[in-house]
Amino acid sequence: METMRWQDDCLVLLDQTLLPGEVRYIQCRDVDTVCAAIRRLAVRGAPAIGAAAAYGLALGARSLDCADSQSFLSRVREIADRLAATRPTAVNLHWALRRLLDKMTAALPATPQQLKELLLAEARAIYDEDYRANQAMGRHGAELLPEQAGVLTHCNAGALATAGFGTALGVIRAAHQQGKKIHVYADETRPLLQGARLTTWELLQEGIPVTLLTDNMAGYLMALGKVDAVIVGADRITRNGDVANKIGTYSVAVLAREHGIPFYVAAPLSTIDLSLASGQEIPIEQRAPEEVTCIGGVRVAPAGVEVWNPAFDVTPARLVTAIITERGVYRPPYTETLPALFAQDC
Amino acid sequence: METMRWQDDCLVLLDQTLLPGEVRYIQCRDVDTVCAAIRRLAVRGAPAIGAAAAYGLALGARSLDCADSQSFLSRVREIADRLAATRPTAVNLHWALRRLLDKMTAALPATPQQLKELLLAEARAIYDEDYRANQAMGRHGAELLPEQAGVLTHCNAGALATAGFGTALGVIRAAHQQGKKIHVYADETRPLLQGARLTTWELLQEGIPVTLLTDNMAGYLMALGKVDAVIVGADRITRNGDVANKIGTYSVAVLAREHGIPFYVAAPLSTIDLSLASGQEIPIEQRAPEEVTCIGGVRVAPAGVEVWNPAFDVTPARLVTAIITERGVYRPPYTETLPALFAQDC
Repeated sequence: METMRWQDDCLVLLDQTLLPGEVRYIQCRDVDTVCAAIRRLAVRGAPAIGAAAAYGLALGARSLDCADSQSFLSRVREIADRLAATRPTAVNLHWALRRLLDKMTAALPATPQQLKELLLAEARAIYDEDYRANQAMGRHGAELLPEQAGVLTHCNAGALATAGFGTALGVIRAAHQQGKKIHVYADETRPLLQGARLTTWELLQEGIPVTLLTDNMAGYLMALGKVDAVIVGADRITRNGDVANKIGTYSVAVLAREHGIPFYVAAPLSTIDLSLASGQEIPIEQRAPEEVTCIGGVRVAPAGVEVWNPAFDVTPARLVTAIITERGVYRPPYTETLPALFAQDC
Repeated sequence: METMRWQDDCLVLLDQTLLPGEVRYIQCRDVDTVCAAIRRLAVRGAPAIGAAAAYGLALGARSLDCADSQSFLSRVREIADRLAATRPTAVNLHWALRRLLDKMTAALPATPQQLKELLLAEARAIYDEDYRANQAMGRHGAELLPEQAGVLTHCNAGALATAGFGTALGVIRAAHQQGKKIHVYADETRPLLQGARLTTWELLQEGIPVTLLTDNMAGYLMALGKVDAVIVGADRITRNGDVANKIGTYSVAVLAREHGIPFYVAAPLSTIDLSLASGQEIPIEQRAPEEVTCIGGVRVAPAGVEVWNPAFDVTPARLVTAIITERGVYRPPYTETLPALFAQDC
């Protein structure tokens, strides 16, 4: 099951809003279709959004008819701004767009046609690198799990949230492939039920044991001693190790700490935003009330009720046992370990 | 809006499974209809279940055609056993049935007809006392809330969960009536959404400000400083102050402690079970997987997925700031304060 692919000058995206009931792909032939798909969560998960936005920028650039590179460049920047505005919290979106724009300016002088090819090649590279990064994260993270473990995860940080293999579920997949006996507990993850719809679906397909529970059961499950580790993905990690991730992650982290359970975050370097000092600076997306008041088209709350619907929350670094990246496992103090991780580039 | 009433030899129950979309009453003319209504949560909330079971026993007794009191008594006990088997966790059910049976045996010798009248009178008394108990709880509990407060509640411990006025919502109602500026944050309370469907509906009708959130948002809401107090109801409180309540209550209590927010439990004496030493002895009801995998008839999880669906959890006494009863507010050590509360009967 591919989350996305580039085919015949078109970005083909799996419409994740229809899962698990229906497997349908969206043919994105223009950047507007990509923007809409990101906004309505047809494609979601920070790394997947990054790759989709990169392909979206390449797609938008290909449709431009500019004779000179300067006007091409400025039009591409406009398209990047539109893609960047689709969702505010996940940094991979901005990271991927920045990477394509930087690549393009570095390649000047070049013809618009050359730049178009270069943008597509870079989008492909982002996609391919993400896949490899997830596999590396899996290898590093699997070592943290005991031979037999109950592992709680929140939302979907799986193949569907990435170019493939997954971040948090990548760690679980790798441990399972190594023969470790992993039993996954999947929070359903209201309001949009990514855990119920996507995580259980991914795991069932591969025969990895999984039990579904509502978000409010996680604490009691921990109290009963069923959870040996928590692993989640991330939408943005700041320099001090604070983690923005799907709403509810913070509660899970507090509960894990209360029960002495390690809380791991699996995320590629593209999710780490060294430009922000702490999680307080991360913009948190507020989404429509209908996500809470209606489920599958069925209204479950009285008309006119006020709703609070933040899509993400911030887990402070002090609750994060370790951050699993493609370069290895990093532990506190994150203000030292995370910048050092990037310094390896030099 | 009445949760239940006795009318024309019939127990009339509001079908809470249809709220807020539809207001429909069930005419219970036999005990089987009452048992089914309790089992499928048409009537729910520990005090409401207690009152409904009492009326159910009176209803079942009225249909008996026994010449002698001894055979009448043994048939009534059979009916009580059937009612008692409908739901295991809330103790009010067992308390109410025990109270009716004790009243009956104490009245012997008496004719079956006299006993029938006595059972109905006692059921009415339980109903009336619950209403008055809630009002008293409201008065005592309202004193705990500041003039202006954000109050988080979980599930529905309102008029709909009781004979009227409510336990946790009774405290909020009373504070609101006293002119305190209370803003309620209502956890939607998966899987059956009693918060989204019932709590918001009750509060909207009375113009008490309320914001709906999914259960996994409570921690982040607390971290943002929006919650000054948590108030919940209870299904059973043991001698040491452990509290069984709707699944998710334990997580809320841990989160409240983490943020230094008082965690109050409002419950009548009929919810306190001195026969149990601790919450570990409370039977926790497991309910059907479909409550989690389907919402409003819409399937949200893949077929065949394993589900964990406990209806309740246990919050240890150490996390409970105070227990609000009709006799006043009780604080730790509960092993001393709770038995003393009952000793006042002597």
